[in-house]
Amino acid sequence: MNKSSNTFWHPASVTRQDRQKLNGHSGTILWFTGLSGSGKSTLAHAVEEKLYQRQCRTTVLDGDNVRHGLCGDLSFSGEDRTENIRRIGQVACLFVDAGMIVLTAFISPFRIDRQRVRMMVTKAEDFIEIYCDCPLEICEQRDIKGLYQRARKGEIADFTGISSPYEAPANADLIVDTGTAAVDQCVKQVIEFLEGRGMIEKI
Amino acid sequence: MNKSSNTFWHPASVTRQDRQKLNGHSGTILWFTGLSGSGKSTLAHAVEEKLYQRQCRTTVLDGDNVRHGLCGDLSFSGEDRTENIRRIGQVACLFVDAGMIVLTAFISPFRIDRQRVRMMVTKAEDFIEIYCDCPLEICEQRDIKGLYQRARKGEIADFTGISSPYEAPANADLIVDTGTAAVDQCVKQVIEFLEGRGMIEKI
Repeated sequence: MNKSSNTFWHPASVTRQDRQKLNGHSGTILWFTGLSGSGKSTLAHAVEEKLYQRQCRTTVLDGDNVRHGLCGDLSFSGEDRTENIRRIGQVACLFVDAGMIVLTAFISPFRIDRQRVRMMVTKAEDFIEIYCDCPLEICEQRDIKGLYQRARKGEIADFTGISSPYEAPANADLIVDTGTAAVDQCVKQVIEFLEGRGMIEKI
Repeated sequence: MNKSSNTFWHPASVTRQDRQKLNGHSGTILWFTGLSGSGKSTLAHAVEEKLYQRQCRTTVLDGDNVRHGLCGDLSFSGEDRTENIRRIGQVACLFVDAGMIVLTAFISPFRIDRQRVRMMVTKAEDFIEIYCDCPLEICEQRDIKGLYQRARKGEIADFTGISSPYEAPANADLIVDTGTAAVDQCVKQVIEFLEGRGMIEKI
């Protein structure tokens, strides 16, 4: 019986600290919340683009890469929305531990669900709640995917803002006016927030 | 009504290609499979340490960070093990899309479950199955966590190798002898494999 492999059982461990040092920035969750059509996903991707230019390590979680994969078994019922946000929160924490900036773009309409994610993270500053503040009328007028029209016709059940509530953050870390401000303005606001907190280098 | 924000709806997109370029290596899943006590987690962490020294961007998924979080709602029944591996596979894919090398250390006893993960990835080489080949007798003799002893006493149901099957890979991409080889040897084997495939730079 080989015993030289005793060392086998003392695992080396790369820490979050190590990863952040390598990356040159903090790991954190930028949690974009707001109505359908409020511009969460667009803003998240635009912020990511800017962070990429600064060589930050990032990823975006949104309906496109989560709803068909990890959460493909979940419906849009209240219970399943809660489980959806729980899983996304847990995955976001894994990315933070990996030293990354993870940008999530989900309606996440219930305050309690977002609060639960805030409770998952190691440090308070690991979770930054960004409210994409855009009036329902504007979201509905944009109606990029034609979903509001279908919801008004009663073709979609539990549609946030129409037949299911959206609970705006009471204490968002950041509020961006995605209803009337240009996207570049909103991006600037997020980047300056991160610089202000010392999470990325000021340039 | 503001219309300047039309541009809002043409999202910028950082691609996997971009991220890999920034990182200087490919994103991929190193899927370590084997019995409890076969050295999966130890090897995964040791490989990660080596990759970190080369400035590769990595993360380890194992029981420690998954079973209490993302999959904290799952038991060890056959059905839940399958769902456990499905979720881990989906999360691993998210890390690969983020350009990272993700090392997973789970018993993952069922061939069909591992096969399903292989089917999730974009390219065949995104999933590298590494069999930690260690005889049951050695795992049981190590019995780091005292689990085999408890399983033999019948205190743990569905324990892989004792009361639940382990299906060894028929076509593993790599087989490492974690029963008798030293950990450094096994690490070297994995690193050379990655170099050989051109996924990390040869140094």
